[in-house]
Amino acid sequence: MDLTQIANPSFLKKMNKEKMTELAMEIRKFLIHNLSTTGGHIGPNLGVVELTIALHKLFDSPKDKIIWDVGHQAYVHKILTGRAGQFDTLRQYKGLCGFPKMSESEHDVWETGHSSTSLSAAMGMAAARDMQGGTNFVVPIIGDGALTGGMALEALNHIGHLKTNMIVVLNDNEMSIAPNVGALHAILGKLRTAGKYNSAKDELEYILKRIPAVGGKVAAAAERVKDSLKYLLVSGVFFEELGFTYLGPIDGHDFNDLERNIQYAKKMEGPVLLHVITKKGKGYRPAENDKIGTWHGTGPYKIETGDFVKSPTNAPSWSGLVAETVRKIAREDKRVAAITPAMPVGSKLESFAAEFPDRFFDVGIAEQHAATMAGGLATQGMKPFLAIYSTFLQRAYDQVLHDITRQKLNVFIGIDRAGLVGADGETHQGVFDIAFLRHMPNIVIMMPKDENEGQHMVKTALSYDDGPIALRYPRGNGLGVPMDENLKIIPIGTWEILREGTDGTILTFGTTIPMALEAAETLSRKGIHVKVVNARFIKPLDTEMLEEIFEHGKPIVTIEEAVLAGGFGSAVLEYAHDLGMSHISISRIGIPDEYIEHGSVDRLLEEIDLTCENVVETMEKAVAQSVVAREIV
Amino acid sequence: MDLTQIANPSFLKKMNKEKMTELAMEIRKFLIHNLSTTGGHIGPNLGVVELTIALHKLFDSPKDKIIWDVGHQAYVHKILTGRAGQFDTLRQYKGLCGFPKMSESEHDVWETGHSSTSLSAAMGMAAARDMQGGTNFVVPIIGDGALTGGMALEALNHIGHLKTNMIVVLNDNEMSIAPNVGALHAILGKLRTAGKYNSAKDELEYILKRIPAVGGKVAAAAERVKDSLKYLLVSGVFFEELGFTYLGPIDGHDFNDLERNIQYAKKMEGPVLLHVITKKGKGYRPAENDKIGTWHGTGPYKIETGDFVKSPTNAPSWSGLVAETVRKIAREDKRVAAITPAMPVGSKLESFAAEFPDRFFDVGIAEQHAATMAGGLATQGMKPFLAIYSTFLQRAYDQVLHDITRQKLNVFIGIDRAGLVGADGETHQGVFDIAFLRHMPNIVIMMPKDENEGQHMVKTALSYDDGPIALRYPRGNGLGVPMDENLKIIPIGTWEILREGTDGTILTFGTTIPMALEAAETLSRKGIHVKVVNARFIKPLDTEMLEEIFEHGKPIVTIEEAVLAGGFGSAVLEYAHDLGMSHISISRIGIPDEYIEHGSVDRLLEEIDLTCENVVETMEKAVAQSVVAREIV
Repeated sequence: MDLTQIANPSFLKKMNKEKMTELAMEIRKFLIHNLSTTGGHIGPNLGVVELTIALHKLFDSPKDKIIWDVGHQAYVHKILTGRAGQFDTLRQYKGLCGFPKMSESEHDVWETGHSSTSLSAAMGMAAARDMQGGTNFVVPIIGDGALTGGMALEALNHIGHLKTNMIVVLNDNEMSIAPNVGALHAILGKLRTAGKYNSAKDELEYILKRIPAVGGKVAAAAERVKDSLKYLLVSGVFFEELGFTYLGPIDGHDFNDLERNIQYAKKMEGPVLLHVITKKGKGYRPAENDKIGTWHGTGPYKIETGDFVKSPTNAPSWSGLVAETVRKIAREDKRVAAITPAMPVGSKLESFAAEFPDRFFDVGIAEQHAATMAGGLATQGMKPFLAIYSTFLQRAYDQVLHDITRQKLNVFIGIDRAGLVGADGETHQGVFDIAFLRHMPNIVIMMPKDENEGQHMVKTALSYDDGPIALRYPRGNGLGVPMDENLKIIPIGTWEILREGTDGTILTFGTTIPMALEAAETLSRKGIHVKVVNARFIKPLDTEMLEEIFEHGKPIVTIEEAVLAGGFGSAVLEYAHDLGMSHISISRIGIPDEYIEHGSVDRLLEEIDLTCENVVETMEKAVAQSVVAREIV
Repeated sequence: MDLTQIANPSFLKKMNKEKMTELAMEIRKFLIHNLSTTGGHIGPNLGVVELTIALHKLFDSPKDKIIWDVGHQAYVHKILTGRAGQFDTLRQYKGLCGFPKMSESEHDVWETGHSSTSLSAAMGMAAARDMQGGTNFVVPIIGDGALTGGMALEALNHIGHLKTNMIVVLNDNEMSIAPNVGALHAILGKLRTAGKYNSAKDELEYILKRIPAVGGKVAAAAERVKDSLKYLLVSGVFFEELGFTYLGPIDGHDFNDLERNIQYAKKMEGPVLLHVITKKGKGYRPAENDKIGTWHGTGPYKIETGDFVKSPTNAPSWSGLVAETVRKIAREDKRVAAITPAMPVGSKLESFAAEFPDRFFDVGIAEQHAATMAGGLATQGMKPFLAIYSTFLQRAYDQVLHDITRQKLNVFIGIDRAGLVGADGETHQGVFDIAFLRHMPNIVIMMPKDENEGQHMVKTALSYDDGPIALRYPRGNGLGVPMDENLKIIPIGTWEILREGTDGTILTFGTTIPMALEAAETLSRKGIHVKVVNARFIKPLDTEMLEEIFEHGKPIVTIEEAVLAGGFGSAVLEYAHDLGMSHISISRIGIPDEYIEHGSVDRLLEEIDLTCENVVETMEKAVAQSVVAREIV
C-alpha cells in the first residue's frame, strides 16, 4: 500500500493480521529507505512498528490519548496519522519534526524530547478525564531506560497510589540509548525470562474466588495463602507492589499477543502495566546487531552495508576531544572519575570506561542523581567529570544549585552539545545553560575558541580546586587546528585579544568566534577597526580587560549562541552599569526569547540573525551613533 | 548530664542502655525547652533521638559518613557533636544553622535543606571509598516522605544495581511534612504491620542451605521453592527486588532493637535498608498528637499548652490569601484544580482540599511530577494551580522549561515563599526564581504590591489563557490593606505609578515597594523628587511605560529581593540597550552573587545593603552624576 495515502488510523480498525503484517513490512521498508537519506532515530522506530499499529487499531486516537515518552520513536505513529508524505523533510528546517508536535497533528497530544515525562503527563490527562466525566483511555508508552528517570518513578508512585485508570505500555528493548543500568533493569530482565504467567494468574484468580470468605483466623490464613500464591505466580511483583496490574511479558512483534493483552488491559480497573518486549532496530540487520547504541539515532547511511555517510573531517569531535583529554589526565591523577547519565557513546566515554572501569559510572537516565553523586564524590577528594548534554543538565538545575555550587564542590561539569544542536530541534537546543548557571554563586563557566584551547581547559578544570567549573563545548567537530603537545592551565577569568582595533570591540566565545573575526575583517575593509576578544570565561568575566575596554568608551557588540535574556551580554551590561559606565554602547546579539525549532544550525543562525552580516551592521550602526554623539558634545 | 559539655560522640561508645535512656530524656527536655523560644523543626527531631544516639554509638563519625536527608532532623546530631551550647542562637543570624553545615562541624559531611539528596550523595561517598580502598561505612538517613522524591528513587535504582556497600536508614514516621501519599507509602504501611521477619528469614536461610544442589530439574525446583518461600517470608520484597537487603521493621525508640539490627547490617555485604519506625514529636504530647504537620517546624510556643506564640496581625497570610482566592474562583470555574508537592498545610490548601477533594492533588515530595502533571491537566482544558515554594520550584526547572512553557500550557504557578525566607537559610531562600524563569519563552511572571492586588492577580492568572503565568508571593503576612469585594483582571504587562517625580525613577515590585516609597519620601525632603513604579509584571515588562521613562533620560534605580545576575534589573538594562538608550543611568539593587545564610529577613536585608538608606544614597549619587554630565555638555 502507498503509505502516503494514509490520512488517519481508522483504516486499521478492520485490518486482519495478515494485512497488518504486510503493513508492518511496508513501514519498515519506508523507514529504512527514507532515513538512509535524512538520518533520524532508526533503531527505536523499527522496534515499535507492530506495537504502534496495534495501539492505533485498538485505541481511538485522539480521543484516547497516546503519549510517546521521549518521542523519538513516534515515526510510525506519524506515518499512521497521515504524515508519511513529509518524511523527506524529516528533521529539516520547517520540515517534519523528529518528535511529536501538536501543530503537526491532533494525534500528537503531548510534545516531548526529554525522557520520562509521559507518566506525569498521562496522570494529568487521566485526572482531567476523571474530573470531566470522560471515558477515554490514557496510554503512555515509556521505554525501560526512561523508566529510571526520577520523574517517571515519582509518577509511578502517584498513579499506583491513586489507582487511576491508565494503561502504561512499558516498551522494553533492553537498552535505552546505551545498554541500560539500574536495579529496575535487572527486575525487567528477570521478568523477561520468567515466561508467561497470564494463564496461571487466571487460574489462580479462579481458585482464590472459591476460598470461602469466613471470618477470623481462617480468613487470615486464606489471605496469607493468597499473598504467597500471588508472590509465587505473579512475576511482576515489583509493579504489583506499586499498585499496578502487571501484564506480560508480551511479544511486541506478535500482533496476537499484543492484541490479546491490550484488549484485556482495556477491561481492567486501575492502572495496568503492559510489559512489551521489543527489539530495537528490528528488521534491519545492521541496527538489530547494534550492541552499544550506534543505531539509536544516525545521520544518512548506505542501506546495503549500513555504513554511515559522513562528511570527511580531520578535526576531532568535541565530545571525543574532551573525553580523551580527561582520560589522559586520569592516567596521572587517580582522583579523576567520570559520570554519564546514559550517554557513554554520545559523550565518547567508551575508552575511558574501558581503561578505568572502576572510575567510570553510567548511572542510566538519571541526571539529578548523576549530578549529586558527583557532588558526593567531590566531598571525598575525588575529581568527578560529569559529562552531560546542555539540554539534559536542565534536569539537574537544583542539584547544581543546591548541592554542587552551594557547597562549592570540585565538580567538573562537561556541558556537551552547548549551543544550537540542529535537527533535534527545540527540545534539545543547548541554549539555556549560560542563563541558568550564571546566577549560581561559586561557579566558573568557560568555552574554548578551538579544540586546542579546549584541551587546555580540560586541564584547567581538573586542576581547579576552588569549586565547580563548567566547560561548554558544541555538538560536532573542532576546527582542525594544530594541537599542543603539553597541556597547560589557563588562568581563571582571563580573556584573550584575538585582533586589535580602536573603533569598537566584539566580545564573544566558542562557536561564534570565526563569525566575529570575519565581521572584523569585513569592517576593516570599510575603515572600521575593531578589537575581537575571546571571552572564554563567561563567569567570572575578565573584569580587568573589560574595564580597560570600557575606559576607551567605544561601542561593544557581544555575540553568543545562547539565549539573550540573562546571558553573557547581560553580564557585560550588568558590569558596565555596576561601574557606573552607563554611557557605553553595548549591543547584544544572540538567541531571542523564543524556542528555536529544528533545522540545520547554519539555517537556524540565519533565521535568528545570528550572522556575520548582522554583527557588521550592528557594529557599523553603533560606531556611527557614537561618532554622532561625540560630535554633538 | 550537662549536654553543653559534650565535645564529641565518643562518650557514647561505652554507654549502657540505662544511661542512654536517661540521655534521650535529657535531650528531649533540652529540645522542647530550647525550641520553645527559638522555634525550629521540633517534631522531626523528637522522633530521631534514640536513632541518632544509636547511630553515633555504633558508627565512628566522621570517618563513617552519617548523611541526614533534608537535614532539619539533625538537631540531636548537633547536640551529640558538641553544639548544644549554641542552641539559643538556632536559626538566628550568625547562629547555629537549622541544617547540617560543614563549617560548623567535621561531623556534618553533607549539607542539605532540600529533600531526597542523601542517597545520591551517599553513592558518591561510597564510590569514592571503594576507589580509594577505604573501609568506612556510609549511612544516609532518609525519611519515608523524602524517599518518593525522584532523585532518591534514581539513586535507589543505581545503588541496588551496583550492590555498593551502604547502610540506608529509612526513617519511617508515617508522614513527611504532611501525611504521606504514594504507593511506596502503602508498601511501607504493609511492612509496618507485618511484624518481624528477621528470625523467620534466618530459619529460612538454614533450611535452604540444606536443599541439595543437584543439577537439572531438581535444582530448578529448589530455586522455585527458594523464590516462593522468599516471597512468602521476606516482607521487604519491594526493596529486595531493587537489590537491597531489607531489615525491619525496627522500633526506632528501642535501643536494643536498633543496636541489634545496626550491628547485623554492619556485617552484611551490599546495600542494606534498615526500616526504622519512629514517631514524629515523640515525648511531647502536642507534637505527638499532631496529625497534619503543624508541629513539623514551628515558631516559639508555650511548653505547657503547646500554644504558638504569634505576633498579632490582622493581615492574611500570603499563602492563605492566594489559596482562598483560588478556592473562591474554583466555585465558579470547574476547570480549576490545585496541585501541591507535599505542602497542603504550608500552602494553606486544606480548605480547598476539603471543598474540592476531586480537584485537589497532593502528589507527595515530587516537584517534577507535580509540574508536568499540571501540564497534562492543562492540555485537557483544565486550569491547574501549582502551589510550590520558590526554592522547591528549582527542582522542576526542566519541567517548567521543557514541558510547560515550551508547550505554552495554561498552568498557574503560585510561587510561594518568594524572596528571602529568613530562618531556614541559604538552602531555602526564594531568590533565584526570577533569574531562572525570566529566560523561558512564553511565561508571564508577576508579583503584587499588597494582598488586594494579590487577589486580583490570582483572578488574572486563572483568566489568562495564553500560556503559563507565575505569581510570586512572599513568606508571611500581607500588609493589612482593605480588600476589594470584586475580583478584577489586571492587564498583562502593565505597571502602575505609585508616586510621581521628575528627577529619577525607582522601579520595583512586591515586598520592596514600601522601601521604595520610604526612600522617595526621604529623597523628596532632600529636594530630589522621584517617581516610584510598581513594576508588578516582571515579564513581560511594561515597555510602553518604560520607554516613556527612558525618554526622560533621568536615572533609574531598580530594587529586587532576588539575585541580581540575570534578574529584573538586568531585564531593564537589556531593554534600554536594545532600544539603543545606552546613556541612561540604571543602578540595580538586589541580592549579590553569594548564598545568603539564615537570619531574620530584616537583618539579612541590612547585611546585603538592600535597604532604604542604600536606595536613597544610590539615587542621590545617580542624580548628582547625571547633573554633572549635563553640565559638562
